[in-house]
Amino acid sequence: MAQLGASLKIFTSHRVIYGDTDRMGVVYYANYLRWFEKGRSEFLRQIGLPYKTIEAQGFHFPVTEVSCRYFKSAHYDDLITIATQLTSVGHASLRFDYIISREGDTSSLASGSTKHACVDVNGRIKRIPGDLTQRLAKVLITPTQST
Amino acid sequence: MAQLGASLKIFTSHRVIYGDTDRMGVVYYANYLRWFEKGRSEFLRQIGLPYKTIEAQGFHFPVTEVSCRYFKSAHYDDLITIATQLTSVGHASLRFDYIISREGDTSSLASGSTKHACVDVNGRIKRIPGDLTQRLAKVLITPTQST
Amino acid sequence: MAQLGASLKIFTSHRVIYGDTDRMGVVYYANYLRWFEKGRSEFLRQIGLPYKTIEAQGFHFPVTEVSCRYFKSAHYDDLITIATQLTSVGHASLRFDYIISREGDTSSLASGSTKHACVDVNGRIKRIPGDLTQRLAKVLITPTQST
Amino acid sequence: MAQLGASLKIFTSHRVIYGDTDRMGVVYYANYLRWFEKGRSEFLRQIGLPYKTIEAQGFHFPVTEVSCRYFKSAHYDDLITIATQLTSVGHASLRFDYIISREGDTSSLASGSTKHACVDVNGRIKRIPGDLTQRLAKVLITPTQST
Repeated sequence: MAQLGASLKIFTSHRVIYGDTDRMGVVYYANYLRWFEKGRSEFLRQIGLPYKTIEAQGFHFPVTEVSCRYFKSAHYDDLITIATQLTSVGHASLRFDYIISREGDTSSLASGSTKHACVDVNGRIKRIPGDLTQRLAKVLITPTQST
Repeated sequence: MAQLGASLKIFTSHRVIYGDTDRMGVVYYANYLRWFEKGRSEFLRQIGLPYKTIEAQGFHFPVTEVSCRYFKSAHYDDLITIATQLTSVGHASLRFDYIISREGDTSSLASGSTKHACVDVNGRIKRIPGDLTQRLAKVLITPTQST
Repeated sequence: MAQLGASLKIFTSHRVIYGDTDRMGVVYYANYLRWFEKGRSEFLRQIGLPYKTIEAQGFHFPVTEVSCRYFKSAHYDDLITIATQLTSVGHASLRFDYIISREGDTSSLASGSTKHACVDVNGRIKRIPGDLTQRLAKVLITPTQST
Repeated sequence: MAQLGASLKIFTSHRVIYGDTDRMGVVYYANYLRWFEKGRSEFLRQIGLPYKTIEAQGFHFPVTEVSCRYFKSAHYDDLITIATQLTSVGHASLRFDYIISREGDTSSLASGSTKHACVDVNGRIKRIPGDLTQRLAKVLITPTQST
């Protein structure tokens, strides 16, 4: 249903707890955004740029836009896989794409993306520093048929 | 920044608590989706169709798609207004649009929308029953410049 | 099942949303702690000491201990009442007691308490300033048969 | 600060995300109860009794009481360890004890416990079935000095 491009893709796992579900017996829709955060956080850690380190340099990347499409439900105790890719690096913005699936299941449960602005500690838009752009550009992919 | 059409608009309030915020000092992005739910829930209640009653008739409207754009941050203790409109009624689907603002502030903090499928208790897509469609159609508006 | 003493008691309301519930069809146990926060936040606002104002003076009251007993379940769309009382004011600590009930229902769903330390911006324990202690002492009650 | 007895102890990890924190820059107090759930869920899985399997047999163990003491704060990106022990098995009740710490840090951040009732699908109190009691008794410990 959803496909990410062929470049660097980071996989993170999450075991669904009761606290993630709602009375329909499935994961509440807002909780997928927590998984997106977990996905991009591990993505940055694995390419050697933990978000905490980026923040320590005075740069923040708040979410300016999110979208998510839900295809199938996630249930209690499911082992969820979050596949994350960096799909755009602008002068002062980033975009990540995500695919949520159940471990051992080839079809996806959901797909989505987040856009981020680069801001300083006062919340002012800033150009992403050159060295950071270079390192991000190396793992950047062009999405193909994403969602 | 965002504008809803001129038809029926339901306003709901929410006071931001610590539990809504994150370490940036602002409301965590996933929590806006909780506000969207609160908004559409009050919308349905105020037009005389509480969601609980709809469910009791065997119909559910799970979210199939969500999007949200964040313009400004919401902070601790802010009194938030959620403006909700029904913007589409299909054979087996609905769409709601939302505008999030701070009480007494004319500009909006965020805007978004959710799409819903009509399903039965077994999760199978169902046509929305005729009487429900009629009642929803009465409060339906065509969005103008929404987001 | 639970009873608060006869002195100042502040009542706050919360409508249960899907996002509060879990797959058992009831409110997830951790969410009662969000309600406790909402309760004490409104308590402080109504006695003229909004927590935000206290923080602006450099004092914070992080939770050092919480307990909650669950008697009956809360369900989707329930209108919940949170009754809050201040039950102890120490040199550098506070205690609040809470009773959770369903509107129009005399028996309680849950009861609990939180203890708080007074700290400065650096997290160091501080004596509660004299004027604050005096104002809090006025609304302090001795719990009688609480829980 | 807190100590669990010497018997079976199951360790689970959690990486703190933004969504776990609040504007004080620390993990919001209610989220520790999510970690407790994660802890007891992994405990049951590792002793060969996944909670999902217990539920499939018609038994549920809702929380009837929780308490938590907070000693130190957990921060963004901390790798948290949840140590879980089963500390009581009654005719129709269980108790788990938890210690929360930061990986590589000997002192604990928080400690707590949950009590559970054994109920059937209709929420009626039930005696825990004999074979389940026997298997739980094997991993039961008597807490020693557990806060």
